[in-house]
Amino acid sequence: MSAFLRKLGIDLPIIQAPMAGVSTPEMAAAVSNAGGLGSIGVGAVNADTARGMIHAVRAKTDRSFLVNVFCHAPAVPDSQREAAWLTRLTPEFARYGATPPTELREIYTSFVADDAMLAVLVAERPAVVSFHFGLPSRERIDALRAAGIVLLATATNLDEGKAIAAAGVDAVVAQGYEAGGHRGVFDPAALDDQIGTIALTRLLVRSLDVPVIAAGGIMDGAGIAAALKLGATTAQLGTAFVACPESSADAGYRAALLGPPAEHTVMTAAISGRPARCLPNRFTLLGASVERGAVPDYPIAYDAGKALHVAAKSAGEFGYGAQWAGQGAPLARVLPAAELVVQLQSEMEEAMSREVGG
Amino acid sequence: MSAFLRKLGIDLPIIQAPMAGVSTPEMAAAVSNAGGLGSIGVGAVNADTARGMIHAVRAKTDRSFLVNVFCHAPAVPDSQREAAWLTRLTPEFARYGATPPTELREIYTSFVADDAMLAVLVAERPAVVSFHFGLPSRERIDALRAAGIVLLATATNLDEGKAIAAAGVDAVVAQGYEAGGHRGVFDPAALDDQIGTIALTRLLVRSLDVPVIAAGGIMDGAGIAAALKLGATTAQLGTAFVACPESSADAGYRAALLGPPAEHTVMTAAISGRPARCLPNRFTLLGASVERGAVPDYPIAYDAGKALHVAAKSAGEFGYGAQWAGQGAPLARVLPAAELVVQLQSEMEEAMSREVGG
Repeated sequence: MSAFLRKLGIDLPIIQAPMAGVSTPEMAAAVSNAGGLGSIGVGAVNADTARGMIHAVRAKTDRSFLVNVFCHAPAVPDSQREAAWLTRLTPEFARYGATPPTELREIYTSFVADDAMLAVLVAERPAVVSFHFGLPSRERIDALRAAGIVLLATATNLDEGKAIAAAGVDAVVAQGYEAGGHRGVFDPAALDDQIGTIALTRLLVRSLDVPVIAAGGIMDGAGIAAALKLGATTAQLGTAFVACPESSADAGYRAALLGPPAEHTVMTAAISGRPARCLPNRFTLLGASVERGAVPDYPIAYDAGKALHVAAKSAGEFGYGAQWAGQGAPLARVLPAAELVVQLQSEMEEAMSREVGG
Repeated sequence: MSAFLRKLGIDLPIIQAPMAGVSTPEMAAAVSNAGGLGSIGVGAVNADTARGMIHAVRAKTDRSFLVNVFCHAPAVPDSQREAAWLTRLTPEFARYGATPPTELREIYTSFVADDAMLAVLVAERPAVVSFHFGLPSRERIDALRAAGIVLLATATNLDEGKAIAAAGVDAVVAQGYEAGGHRGVFDPAALDDQIGTIALTRLLVRSLDVPVIAAGGIMDGAGIAAALKLGATTAQLGTAFVACPESSADAGYRAALLGPPAEHTVMTAAISGRPARCLPNRFTLLGASVERGAVPDYPIAYDAGKALHVAAKSAGEFGYGAQWAGQGAPLARVLPAAELVVQLQSEMEEAMSREVGG
């Protein structure tokens, strides 16, 4: 077992991706108990709820787990753009007998500005904390490190990887373009090089002195074995866990993941305000005809997106959900998280023992 | 060694991608002599020239090599669109004291309509022929198989992979979105799911009964080892060979590949009429502001693109070249092709022997 796995306190090179809104304390505990690193995402909740979620994980496991926070630049409100966006969405709401909210709020506080969340993490000391969408200040990083927490952060390109290593974060999550859910890009306005997992992992492994975790398109033990051959110390899998019974994915999301849409995931910013890979649905279709600049900042746009999903769902239409999934979606399995981890381990061991050119 | 490598007549699970206009008979022979599968692309030349290239490879090696042909649907001329495209390019030509051609031609004959090329291949019997952009008719496939030629074809998604396997082709090249040069998509007008190499390879390996060759983002032995762990029988590398002395890449292309542009490859259809991954340059910048429907059909657009490159290059500007490269471009090395194959083998063996979580 590598030094990095020991540092994370896990037996297997498998991290269950945090997936705010999909993963649950039950899922995280099941994965950690099975020898992987279970995760919860607290980017979409406040500090009190985060504390409760951490306690809920601890109620079911004594092992290491990961808590993920969002480090986006706080949203810049633009009332004209938001009004235009609500006007744009009005016919969609109307289809389900609803009206859009009259105004949109920044529904999540970025960790870069959330002192209460920092206090909870420092007090609770989860074994691992990961950052998405960027990095917090040096002071916040130092505070978490001083609490003995191992830190990870997502990079989608070499520059972000270098910034993460320079900030003293312990390891980099190489998020390939294949990955489901939100792209971890630091600056969503910058051109995205859309680098795939193989190329990104190799670039980061060869350029950085910190461990690299490969993420994106990995759904089974063969994928994990491939990640290790690329020089990653660990693989992070999200979509693989969405259909687990411990997931909070709703019925429409599960049906889409396990059906024909799985083959055709798309990147859209229309749902939340930031690019995210999603199963194709009514919302991504709408997004395909939207100019990027028309969508309000993340997570202001998400306030509208969630309201539209609620309105449609109450009329039986699941097609406006944030049905995040990566390109490996057709390989998703319906298995309890602990059983999935056992399967992944056994597949990985089989793949690792396969001969060259076999 | 696997049955598939024996069938290809090679020792190493390494295919040098054909790369019309970049690879040469010298490169192909060097790779084949080193134990990999060297390749030439004859999609951009006529049957007589192809015969000469095949003879040139044979003059330098007795081993197996691959000949690649293009199987695009023949271009549909659209004089209005072509005239508008030439008008659009006129200021670019003018910058270098040149004028665009007065009309554009379909500069390559698709293999689906090229009886002379079929006759050359059946007569010359290269060990391996691969198809890009689609499949030829059943009759052509049968004729090549009857000549004892092993057949490969490129798939960018599961449907294309299934079509290839159903056509009786021996193996599928899983071309991930990371790959440099032309996307092998059968229908360039269809929505592209942009599937990365890891997910695509796993999808094809798990769905098809034929061997899968992984391509896209693979630049070194660790990448090859990863491809094998994904269940691919072989890896195909193109960009890794562009900077070899045997390549016909010009000085501007080499400088871009080995410089800062390598980190920012982009997909563009503006150069040739079909999406292809390229180092960012003046032409890809122009392409970024072009509506897809404005570009003439492949390879009619390429007639304009090549003329613009010639005009600019004669004035010392290399920025309109078809500087194809994949996302692994920053890992390109300047090594003779044979030495590169030796390096790839040694890196692959090192990666294959690395422990789990090592």
